[in-house]
Amino acid sequence: MQSFELDKTDVSKLKQAIGGDNELLKATLEEYHASEIAILFESISKEDRQRIINLLDVETASEVIAEMHEESHPEELLLQLHPEKRIEIVEELDYDDATDIISQLEEHEQKEILEDLSEHDASSIRTLLSYDEETAGGLMNTQVIRINLNLTKKDAIDEIIRQSEEMEEFYTVNVVDDENTFKGVVSLKDIIKAKGNAKITEMVNADAVYVKAETDQEEVARLISQYNLTSIPVVDDHMKLLGRVTFDDVIDVLEDENTEDILKISGVSEDEELSGNWIEAVKSRLPWLIINLGTAFLASAVIRHFDPTIDLIPLLSAYMTIIAGMGGNAATQALAVTVRRISLYDLTDNQAYRAVLKEFTVGLINGAVNGLIVLVFAYFFDHSLMLGVVIFLAMTGNMIIAGITGSGIPLILKRIGIDPAIASSIIITTFTDVFGFLLLLGLASKLLL
Amino acid sequence: MQSFELDKTDVSKLKQAIGGDNELLKATLEEYHASEIAILFESISKEDRQRIINLLDVETASEVIAEMHEESHPEELLLQLHPEKRIEIVEELDYDDATDIISQLEEHEQKEILEDLSEHDASSIRTLLSYDEETAGGLMNTQVIRINLNLTKKDAIDEIIRQSEEMEEFYTVNVVDDENTFKGVVSLKDIIKAKGNAKITEMVNADAVYVKAETDQEEVARLISQYNLTSIPVVDDHMKLLGRVTFDDVIDVLEDENTEDILKISGVSEDEELSGNWIEAVKSRLPWLIINLGTAFLASAVIRHFDPTIDLIPLLSAYMTIIAGMGGNAATQALAVTVRRISLYDLTDNQAYRAVLKEFTVGLINGAVNGLIVLVFAYFFDHSLMLGVVIFLAMTGNMIIAGITGSGIPLILKRIGIDPAIASSIIITTFTDVFGFLLLLGLASKLLL
Repeated sequence: MQSFELDKTDVSKLKQAIGGDNELLKATLEEYHASEIAILFESISKEDRQRIINLLDVETASEVIAEMHEESHPEELLLQLHPEKRIEIVEELDYDDATDIISQLEEHEQKEILEDLSEHDASSIRTLLSYDEETAGGLMNTQVIRINLNLTKKDAIDEIIRQSEEMEEFYTVNVVDDENTFKGVVSLKDIIKAKGNAKITEMVNADAVYVKAETDQEEVARLISQYNLTSIPVVDDHMKLLGRVTFDDVIDVLEDENTEDILKISGVSEDEELSGNWIEAVKSRLPWLIINLGTAFLASAVIRHFDPTIDLIPLLSAYMTIIAGMGGNAATQALAVTVRRISLYDLTDNQAYRAVLKEFTVGLINGAVNGLIVLVFAYFFDHSLMLGVVIFLAMTGNMIIAGITGSGIPLILKRIGIDPAIASSIIITTFTDVFGFLLLLGLASKLLL
Repeated sequence: MQSFELDKTDVSKLKQAIGGDNELLKATLEEYHASEIAILFESISKEDRQRIINLLDVETASEVIAEMHEESHPEELLLQLHPEKRIEIVEELDYDDATDIISQLEEHEQKEILEDLSEHDASSIRTLLSYDEETAGGLMNTQVIRINLNLTKKDAIDEIIRQSEEMEEFYTVNVVDDENTFKGVVSLKDIIKAKGNAKITEMVNADAVYVKAETDQEEVARLISQYNLTSIPVVDDHMKLLGRVTFDDVIDVLEDENTEDILKISGVSEDEELSGNWIEAVKSRLPWLIINLGTAFLASAVIRHFDPTIDLIPLLSAYMTIIAGMGGNAATQALAVTVRRISLYDLTDNQAYRAVLKEFTVGLINGAVNGLIVLVFAYFFDHSLMLGVVIFLAMTGNMIIAGITGSGIPLILKRIGIDPAIASSIIITTFTDVFGFLLLLGLASKLLL
């Protein structure tokens, strides 16, 4: 395999094949991996997707559908297929992938698909559908290798080979007792290395990390990443083995959580699809902008409040925008560092306190340096040292407020159990706008009038 | 294993044990996993870290050091240890982990450590040190399972067991010819399932995905994530097998890249350590703030330029802050969505064009809605319909500029090969500040005077 990425040449080659007859298209598709075809699907029409799925063998077709990005709506593609083809594909999918896709459908559509499946498949998928999407239960696959701890080496290997027939890939062998109680894991390597008459119970690693079905997906991701696991067993409240979450699901979770963080911090609703249309984008962003408009009125009310300084406003207005803008940017910096730190580490109270103290110091210094630059400018350009001093004090004060709010608000939110990324730059810059104007105009009315 | 996380009870239990004698401490440490001790290290003194490392058996000690976060500086801990203990630990580390840690040291310190190692270990680490840290070569581990494609099933299993003695974990078996040329991979499962006299060459998957040593780490991460691989083979220009990059390295790469994105977009240098002190934070952020100060002067120069409207400024100044602030936030929204989209997908030119077109539409609508709200406010509060119209037009125009620059600038940067996240909110909001003031004051001087 020479090329791993679907580059422009590949895309145009595939699109040309779509223009040709089925035979050419089928032959061209055979040169590509399912996940590459899934990428191609992002830039072709619904009709072409349907045609390609119908041309592929069922194994590849189900892989393509499993690999399609959520935002390309594999569930819609599934619905458009002929019922017989659809059932073949759903049967071929891993239970967790099938559940992810089916969960996006309306209830009556879900029912329609599940009715056509075998009772065993349907009930497995129904169980998975019952778990919250963002928990270990929602992420897990019920197809696992499970062997009894009383098996001998030879029987265990036979059993693993038998069970693995239906699985694409497995990384760990789960060990259970006669009641399916989870007893630990054992690696295939250790089984092979064991002596001929050894029993599994002698090789099992009983200290294996596992999670409950209701464990939050972020926690699952953290464990897999911390312990470098390829998969993690999922158990119920009675320690019965339910399934496993694999590392590749966790990579997707991490990417999703990171998208959420970066969007929320920028005042975009977390559910805006990155490649969605303008209607969705307006729906997602307009509410935040209207909140921002409310806070902007608040800031402008401060300006209106300072009637006594009205004669100074033409002079001060150029500086107001500098102080408010600098405060907003300093607050965004502190916010980004703090939100990212919270999402990667658990901070103790003492660490949180020191983080705010650090941002206070950073604000003080950055404010004083920038304030001094503006002071010098005001002295030479507007010929007023006192004006310069007012601006210096307002700048320094506002940057300190930026540091404290930019770090303190997300830390407090985390402490009271709210997602800290919701403290978006829109919320934080309200503080720096309001306090920036208050400081500048308040100090000006005391010192310049 | 009941608790997987180092919660407050664990931390205080461990800290209490640190207060006690070595025997108690050692016994307490035995209850914890190496990666948990590495977390503990984030909140204890250098002296305590050193004492703990000396108490642990060399295997656990090396695991703890390998698991320590880069920001906790494992290389400093290593330097403080007794040379004999240090060598034991370095010898126990995987080559890639040893290289990561040693690469953080000064050249003379690196030399000192490498001199004490065996020639084979030292030259392996020296080779790894020669690769750029952010490439497949810099990430890879040279310890891989490699078997000759002419081996039979039985010999292959013996060879795998022999080679895996020195490895903690392996996921794929690499197949090479007599000259170490990479020929593909084979799974342990397939070898076990094969008939007794089968040869490896019959089972090898020759289509396996691999990367060159100089492949960028982001590309490696993308391939591992796209093809759901536990590890990916690394080859040189002549297809000789050099090593492998594993999925857990990629999880770290993804987290680092995401931290970089969120920091850069917020105007923080990518190399600011999240838990660094205030001196580092000032160094990282002050340059950006001074750039922002320059751009803020630019915006305020616009205000100064409009001498003819000076009589209107007390009236307009409250609205100026609203228009500039709203534009800045709308631009940040468009920027976040675009940067995130670029980092997850490769956009075609046509998709890029449509993304900017979408943001134009979103800006038009969000601008018109918010502009209308302010128009109504201005009419009832300042009793001027014409003032309202000026504000409506300035708001709509500025939000359109926000959408175009917030999406267009990162896309253009990506196109010319510059990291799009550098188009931070600081750069983007310059446009919305300058154009917001230009539009408001320009329109006011035409329509209100």
